Amino acid sequence: MNTDRSKIKNVLFIMADQLRWDYLACAGHPTLKTPNIDALAARGVRFTNAFVQGPVCGASRMSTYTGRYVTSHGSAWNFVPLSVAQKTLGDHLRPHGVRCAVVGKTHVEADDEGAERLGIDTASPAGQLLMHGGFEPYERDDGILPPGFKAEGNRYCDYLREQGYQSDNPWHDFANSSLGEDGTVHSGWNLRWAREAARVAEEHSETPYMTRRAMDFIVEQGEKPWVLHLSFIKPHWPYVAPAPYHDMYGPQDILPVRRDETERADPHPVYRGFMDYTPSQTFSKEGVRETVIPAYMGLITQIDDHIGHLMQFLKDTGRDKDTLIVFTSDHGDYLGDHWMGEKELFHDTIVKVPLLVIDPRRTADNTRGSECDAMVESIDLLPTFLDALQLPQPQEWLEGQSLLPLLQGQQKSWSKDQVVCENTFAFRDCVRLPIGAPVDRCNMTMVRTREWKYVHVDGLRPMLFDLINDPCEIHDLGASPDHAQVREEMQRRLLDWLFSRRRTTGITTEGIETWNVRELKAGIDIGVW
Amino acid sequence: MNTDRSKIKNVLFIMADQLRWDYLACAGHPTLKTPNIDALAARGVRFTNAFVQGPVCGASRMSTYTGRYVTSHGSAWNFVPLSVAQKTLGDHLRPHGVRCAVVGKTHVEADDEGAERLGIDTASPAGQLLMHGGFEPYERDDGILPPGFKAEGNRYCDYLREQGYQSDNPWHDFANSSLGEDGTVHSGWNLRWAREAARVAEEHSETPYMTRRAMDFIVEQGEKPWVLHLSFIKPHWPYVAPAPYHDMYGPQDILPVRRDETERADPHPVYRGFMDYTPSQTFSKEGVRETVIPAYMGLITQIDDHIGHLMQFLKDTGRDKDTLIVFTSDHGDYLGDHWMGEKELFHDTIVKVPLLVIDPRRTADNTRGSECDAMVESIDLLPTFLDALQLPQPQEWLEGQSLLPLLQGQQKSWSKDQVVCENTFAFRDCVRLPIGAPVDRCNMTMVRTREWKYVHVDGLRPMLFDLINDPCEIHDLGASPDHAQVREEMQRRLLDWLFSRRRTTGITTEGIETWNVRELKAGIDIGVW
Repeated sequence: MNTDRSKIKNVLFIMADQLRWDYLACAGHPTLKTPNIDALAARGVRFTNAFVQGPVCGASRMSTYTGRYVTSHGSAWNFVPLSVAQKTLGDHLRPHGVRCAVVGKTHVEADDEGAERLGIDTASPAGQLLMHGGFEPYERDDGILPPGFKAEGNRYCDYLREQGYQSDNPWHDFANSSLGEDGTVHSGWNLRWAREAARVAEEHSETPYMTRRAMDFIVEQGEKPWVLHLSFIKPHWPYVAPAPYHDMYGPQDILPVRRDETERADPHPVYRGFMDYTPSQTFSKEGVRETVIPAYMGLITQIDDHIGHLMQFLKDTGRDKDTLIVFTSDHGDYLGDHWMGEKELFHDTIVKVPLLVIDPRRTADNTRGSECDAMVESIDLLPTFLDALQLPQPQEWLEGQSLLPLLQGQQKSWSKDQVVCENTFAFRDCVRLPIGAPVDRCNMTMVRTREWKYVHVDGLRPMLFDLINDPCEIHDLGASPDHAQVREEMQRRLLDWLFSRRRTTGITTEGIETWNVRELKAGIDIGVW
Repeated sequence: MNTDRSKIKNVLFIMADQLRWDYLACAGHPTLKTPNIDALAARGVRFTNAFVQGPVCGASRMSTYTGRYVTSHGSAWNFVPLSVAQKTLGDHLRPHGVRCAVVGKTHVEADDEGAERLGIDTASPAGQLLMHGGFEPYERDDGILPPGFKAEGNRYCDYLREQGYQSDNPWHDFANSSLGEDGTVHSGWNLRWAREAARVAEEHSETPYMTRRAMDFIVEQGEKPWVLHLSFIKPHWPYVAPAPYHDMYGPQDILPVRRDETERADPHPVYRGFMDYTPSQTFSKEGVRETVIPAYMGLITQIDDHIGHLMQFLKDTGRDKDTLIVFTSDHGDYLGDHWMGEKELFHDTIVKVPLLVIDPRRTADNTRGSECDAMVESIDLLPTFLDALQLPQPQEWLEGQSLLPLLQGQQKSWSKDQVVCENTFAFRDCVRLPIGAPVDRCNMTMVRTREWKYVHVDGLRPMLFDLINDPCEIHDLGASPDHAQVREEMQRRLLDWLFSRRRTTGITTEGIETWNVRELKAGIDIGVW
């Protein structure tokens, strides 16, 4: 039994998908049950101002996995390939002998074109890593297999078939569908069936399956160091929970909707476009929230239960003593707030995420169970992992900074006073077409301080929210004559931020610092008379 | 003999190194002889407002070769590797069966680290292309072999040895050195010897050697299409010309120096740092310009003579009928202007370059011999080549636009009203250390309209020049209270420019435009009730 708490050997990096920051008991939800996640919070630090760098899965995750803002890694939206040239977590770990694997979802889109152009054999072990964002695909499953899709070579689907769920696409037809009272199969892609139970036994659903696979990995790895990304696909839609989680909550348990009629009066054209998007229209209908959110909550409690099992497992194996544990999400879910469904825009509902960090070492004992309101970002996680494992943090690549000083109570050393989140509205016809913007001029970039949220929008006026006087972000001051100076100031922040990006990754900081000395040593002495 | 003037099959892309825009007879130099370059101008269009994207060789050339701004390709200064993921001219040509080669200099720094990480065999033909910025190295020679350097495997050095110039580094010891009256060898790296003749016969010097190699390539290629980058290393320092070019000009032939005592009174800290750089100190000394510039001019006339031979060769082979010809430079040379030597800053002396484009087709007959004052950039060349060869111009990569409409007299279609040039002062200790900036916060970005030149400088005040009332750029208005509004406007331009960069190269414009339709076809229909 390992009782040494002086050194971190492993990182367990748990991510839930589309989990809002405010749907956890430890974050103040009045009726949602998340005792195991709350217990994690009690063992570490809960960050109350943690923000993602993209409001959709792909862009957000690529920022987390590279430690770089979206403009720097270039994967600007879902399904935009991550260039083979981008270094990811695995690239920073593997040369130091740390195994880096994923169990669950990454949303990494492979850069097949780049690989082909560079003559990389994608079937080789090194090529395979590139195709999976640098993670060894111990058990990769990005889910979201649409109805009618023929799921071949998907291990979770194979597993379901082994359990007797026979179909071309058991992910959809069983795990994410339900049975109506008359025996009809109801697709979970239709929100109206969200109160019905999934067609799989709870133990066969995704969350317990992935949790078990994580345990397999940890057992297999033994005493050798690892970073495991356990990435639950839930509570992301399809909003279908297996029994008993499907009816654990009811309409009385959902948080009050955060929307106001004034938001629909004269919205920013981009906001108007997203309000026209089908999920927004649906979630603005009477009864939809009351149907969907109880299922969303059930899926969260299911995750919580399995995190409980996982934590017991870590304790039993002694891994709790030498493993840094992180729990977070890739973005939130509007669930009808602001007349929106899904995600894509920059309200705190979406860009603010849960973040718990548990450092087992004695050096972090003083902060256990505390909250930290420092402004932190998802790109800070990768430097945190490297710092915990005492590995180099190459400054020419990394745009975040380690959170560990905050866990050791050194709040004053934290200088970050803004967070940035980026998206493009190019991919949504309901937004782009009415605006008439070319696809390369659809950039949206949020810079958020404690006081203000400013969203630059290509070719259109910005959005601006006063977070002190309007914390619910109802009144867009982007065109307010009284706020011209605030906008100028936020614009200056944005410009400075854009100029600080790490796009010159081909030379190290030290390589630049020593340039002149090395130049002279090489005999390059210019302009001498 | 080819007499068809309806189709362009080849591109001859000639670049001189460190050639100022104003050191050509056709640009108004009163005594410099460049009859063959002038003849080229008479056959095509001379651009009088052509600007490079970087004020040093490496960054500027990588922009020209990729068609992308420096912030987009990331090779921010000399010797900063060009990421293997960046697409270059060759990547855009080769899939369409067009051979793309270099004769002379590229200043491409190979991304060895990236290649190793991606498991690319750099000895393979494809790997070799990657190491040379996508150019087939038909005869690559980047020169600048410092005194004492042991030149092995350099073909031009081997050639010199074959001609009897025996030494470890004949590039330096013969081609770029001279003999004093007492028989002492004088290194051309010391500017004081610039009036002496090089220790090689003219025919063995770099310019004629490379010109002959270009002809070899063209003969070898026959009727098959090609793009050849003939890249003269001269008139870049060492300022040593072979006879008779070494004493063709004298102090009476040099342009008046463009500098003013007021520039030294209270300079911007970055400007002050560069004025402290050795070449600046040297060129500010009495007599240095008078010694160096005649040699610089001799080297230009030598290039001109060999361009004459090359043009006669193209005429004799009929290639003049189906070859687009471009003549330009990678940046200028201060030569003492503004109390500076070398380059690095953004005065027009440096960022404005000669640019001649000769389109042999009848469609361009109306503009022959004309000048075009449209604001154009080096990144516009790659799209011009692709356009001339009727090849696709992938918008997710290319940030420039084809110049061909301008050659067909369609001036009104040209909307570019600003040019951008970027550099970093991180690599020069004499600038960075007094300022005390970290190496990743040394960015300088110039945006220049017809009226104003604005230079953003990380962490410091900007520079600003009124190009209408102060065309010599003597008075820096970067701190002038009267010009706050101009600075705001230029800052807005910069922000918009930064947001327009093409950093999402993994998906095509068409791929984004058709996204929603393809999504629905794949059965992805979200948020349906």
